[in-house]
Amino acid sequence: MSVQATEETPSGEVELAGLIGPELAGLVGEVRSRLAGRWGGTSLLASMCGHALTSAGKLFRPVLLLESALAVGGDPHRVLPAAVGAESGHVASLVHDDIIDGDDTRRGRPTVHAAYGGGSAIVAGDALIFDLFAGLAECHRAGAPADRVVAALALVSRCGIDLCRGQSLEAEFCTSGRFDHDTYLRMVRLKTAALFRAACECGALLAGGDLRHVVALGRYAQHLGVAFQIRDDLLPYQGSAGKPDTSDVRNGRITLPVIIAHRTGDAADRVVIETALSGVGDPDAARASLASVLDRTGAVAATARWARHYVGLAIAALGALPDTASRDRLRGYAAAAVDRDL
Amino acid sequence: MSVQATEETPSGEVELAGLIGPELAGLVGEVRSRLAGRWGGTSLLASMCGHALTSAGKLFRPVLLLESALAVGGDPHRVLPAAVGAESGHVASLVHDDIIDGDDTRRGRPTVHAAYGGGSAIVAGDALIFDLFAGLAECHRAGAPADRVVAALALVSRCGIDLCRGQSLEAEFCTSGRFDHDTYLRMVRLKTAALFRAACECGALLAGGDLRHVVALGRYAQHLGVAFQIRDDLLPYQGSAGKPDTSDVRNGRITLPVIIAHRTGDAADRVVIETALSGVGDPDAARASLASVLDRTGAVAATARWARHYVGLAIAALGALPDTASRDRLRGYAAAAVDRDL
Repeated sequence: MSVQATEETPSGEVELAGLIGPELAGLVGEVRSRLAGRWGGTSLLASMCGHALTSAGKLFRPVLLLESALAVGGDPHRVLPAAVGAESGHVASLVHDDIIDGDDTRRGRPTVHAAYGGGSAIVAGDALIFDLFAGLAECHRAGAPADRVVAALALVSRCGIDLCRGQSLEAEFCTSGRFDHDTYLRMVRLKTAALFRAACECGALLAGGDLRHVVALGRYAQHLGVAFQIRDDLLPYQGSAGKPDTSDVRNGRITLPVIIAHRTGDAADRVVIETALSGVGDPDAARASLASVLDRTGAVAATARWARHYVGLAIAALGALPDTASRDRLRGYAAAAVDRDL
Repeated sequence: MSVQATEETPSGEVELAGLIGPELAGLVGEVRSRLAGRWGGTSLLASMCGHALTSAGKLFRPVLLLESALAVGGDPHRVLPAAVGAESGHVASLVHDDIIDGDDTRRGRPTVHAAYGGGSAIVAGDALIFDLFAGLAECHRAGAPADRVVAALALVSRCGIDLCRGQSLEAEFCTSGRFDHDTYLRMVRLKTAALFRAACECGALLAGGDLRHVVALGRYAQHLGVAFQIRDDLLPYQGSAGKPDTSDVRNGRITLPVIIAHRTGDAADRVVIETALSGVGDPDAARASLASVLDRTGAVAATARWARHYVGLAIAALGALPDTASRDRLRGYAAAAVDRDL
């Protein structure tokens, strides 16, 4: 259920250009260049990590981390290595997800396991997880106090375990045959929102933010993550240019639009849904029949409303923060996370 | 090339009972009970992590970490959570290794991927890596100073990346067709010794040890790790009870005994070696023919000498430490790491 697109629809990531100011644009450029230079040499591991990081999208998690540091009045340079690490951690999860989901392309390029084999790709993902933590440690040298780094370590490791809980819950959920909102939301909070929360809380903590601001940014990130995943789960079923992604159908993913259609549709619709997700038959045809049921039952529009609801909660959480340009931009990212395609 | 054995030969791990004193035995018991209780609940993730940790062997890495804390005069209770984490990190690497190597049993039980599927096992391994870092953070609450936790974070994340470099180098090496000592030793230092070094340095650092003692323990661990892996690579080719492990043969592993036999044998021996590691034919027959060449060329005995050489270096490194019962025990572990089976 990872964000995936073909060359024609180059990214499911949030479009940030135009939303970030010049200060942040400079910092994000620095993150991008550090990511590009991080895995030097000609070893297999360096090639794989370089390959995985080259397809880095809009660096949304680093942006959230840096913006959270600014939103609490902190120095973003102290948290730059953690911002680099946030992208490494995210890309690690994509590398492993692609193996699990059997996805051979990502943004029009071969995935790491398609290019280098599954075994080596497991190792590349592991290395990127370790590098996430190396980035945290580097923040101390960049000026973050040791006790804040330790607090960030505690929260990032916990969020990492939450991510794994979510991925594992997803595997259970999608074989359960249960079309249940509550389990879906619990899964999404763990699987997607946890890393958003880690990014925002980490940025605020390492930059020396007040605890109540850290908490507010954690709430913002939690709701934003849910909204982001809901929108992501809608993409394969929306009419758009290019060849739609069949990964969710192939992997029998029970996502929010599917759950809503299953609840609101009639018995015939439910048969279409269950057949489409059964893994039998042509994935393109299955996706198309599912998209048609989702559209007809109003599930697409209803899912879009759910996403907007969570964006509203995310924006409301920002009320506890000081009134700054950063807060305004955080509001803008939340809106951009769902509005572009919904 | 992971340690693997059948029920008849229950463990390739070092036999520690009798070597650890009563104080350490109590601490190791505490590590074991924390590992057993760490993944509560009935979720898929908890079941998998519980399954992986249940097969925990002699807890050699936690023992090294705790002993290193004692050897520098520190309080081992401060480092207990890191000792728990050291085992989680080690088990994570086994879970992922077993997927990569296609090994379906470990110590007579199904591996995580054999029991739960490869995709879920990837996630379980990831969760155990994150839990390694959660353990580091917990040391601060147990009394370790924040700056020491940050130093430990830096070294553990670096050693984790070294581990991945080693695994990746192994994949390159074993398809290179080169039978080369130097590459083997570089690979083993990264793949195996890095986690030993992380354990010893981490224990000493978190317990407040002097830097020169941390360095000495790092050297000890480095040599010990090399000796340990050399011995481990010999196990499949030594006559012992039970069904010998064919994983290394199936995966075409170019290990030290094979390298020595390839150098010292004649042209016919080299053909036997290369055929056995080609992945063609019955693995049991391939292993047996390889074992026979290794024995005949004296490679088994020569490999045993190499292992003892590294044990000697490990023990010499301990000379920089204060004369304590811990230092004596560290010496004993090094000897036990190779003497039992060689």
